[in-house]
Amino acid sequence: MKGRRVPRSRLRAVLRLCLVTDAALCGDRGVPAVVRAAVAGGVTSVQVRVKDGSDRDRLAQVRAVQHALHGTGVPLLVDDAVDVAVLAGADGVHLGQSDLPVEEVRRWLGPDLIIGLSVSSVEQASASECAAADYLGIGPVWATATKPDAAVPLGPEGLARVAASAGRPAVAIGGITAARLPALRGRGLDGVCTVSEVCAAPDPAVVAARLRAGWDGGRR
Amino acid sequence: MKGRRVPRSRLRAVLRLCLVTDAALCGDRGVPAVVRAAVAGGVTSVQVRVKDGSDRDRLAQVRAVQHALHGTGVPLLVDDAVDVAVLAGADGVHLGQSDLPVEEVRRWLGPDLIIGLSVSSVEQASASECAAADYLGIGPVWATATKPDAAVPLGPEGLARVAASAGRPAVAIGGITAARLPALRGRGLDGVCTVSEVCAAPDPAVVAARLRAGWDGGRR
Repeated sequence: MKGRRVPRSRLRAVLRLCLVTDAALCGDRGVPAVVRAAVAGGVTSVQVRVKDGSDRDRLAQVRAVQHALHGTGVPLLVDDAVDVAVLAGADGVHLGQSDLPVEEVRRWLGPDLIIGLSVSSVEQASASECAAADYLGIGPVWATATKPDAAVPLGPEGLARVAASAGRPAVAIGGITAARLPALRGRGLDGVCTVSEVCAAPDPAVVAARLRAGWDGGRR
Repeated sequence: MKGRRVPRSRLRAVLRLCLVTDAALCGDRGVPAVVRAAVAGGVTSVQVRVKDGSDRDRLAQVRAVQHALHGTGVPLLVDDAVDVAVLAGADGVHLGQSDLPVEEVRRWLGPDLIIGLSVSSVEQASASECAAADYLGIGPVWATATKPDAAVPLGPEGLARVAASAGRPAVAIGGITAARLPALRGRGLDGVCTVSEVCAAPDPAVVAARLRAGWDGGRR
């Protein structure tokens, strides 16, 4: 890591519209091309997620996205793989409940990178370890095909309860579309994450722009 | 990492009989109990391998084995997961061809930990990146059920060719039993690795002792 490139004062702005990559959904266009289009449309951060594949594949995909993001100012996070994030010099990591413990990762890597943590319940969001995370990713809000092992969907009401118990910056994930954004307003969120809606879109820039406008227009 | 606990002068001695753990084969006894027995029998290093399971499981298993090894002087390596190795303060990591690149891991972590690299061919063993590894794990010598995705078995002759092109400390892995040790003599090896032969043994201490005596008796 080369020092905090995302000051804490910018964190909430960076969380507005988070793209989580899915190579299968990006298809033949490739992940970097979809990322470039999504950023042109208004994505404010990118998390590279490679569920299947080796660490070497993961590192290569992170570097390709890093190259695509060069000069845009949009931060890059790595899902799960802390070693890949460190080797690549990413801006942060996003951890799940079964990944390396967030408090230990924070102690190891210090304050200079963003750490996100996935939570699916009030219990998880109020756990003391959350204090070591910069933000919480809450979900799934709705059922989603991109993460078949995900917990039972929270729905907007459940999401609001989890966000209220979080006491930290929070984003929602899982089945989010532009049409569903109104249901997420007033739920205490800083932003929303998108996977399939943008990665599988024929025109990722257009869909990203629609999500961004929908979110910015009716925020909080 | 807390400094090199295994001086280079001890490396070849440490490689004599390497136990690679397999939780399924250890069964209800648990990995730490099998490790303790194997060390009592003469194992000189332990590599914790958790192919399935989350990073959190992996970290927990590494720590449990670390506890079992406390005071024995036997070093602990972690398979694949560099971040787990660093968090746990392990003595080293063992990397495969599709794991994080050995040269980058060496630059990142410095000289103070052991790095092993798996190779399956003369080509891989003569690659320039091998210079960043402390030792090479060559295999599989014979077919093995514990790594169904492994390359075609080298056989003792093929193993000798790979070891000759390595030019670094080397151990053999894959289907090794006490009865097969004579076939590995004079092949340029510093030691042998065992997975199923010890992990699945009714008495791991006895089998480890047999392997150790067989190897020490007819070394090189």
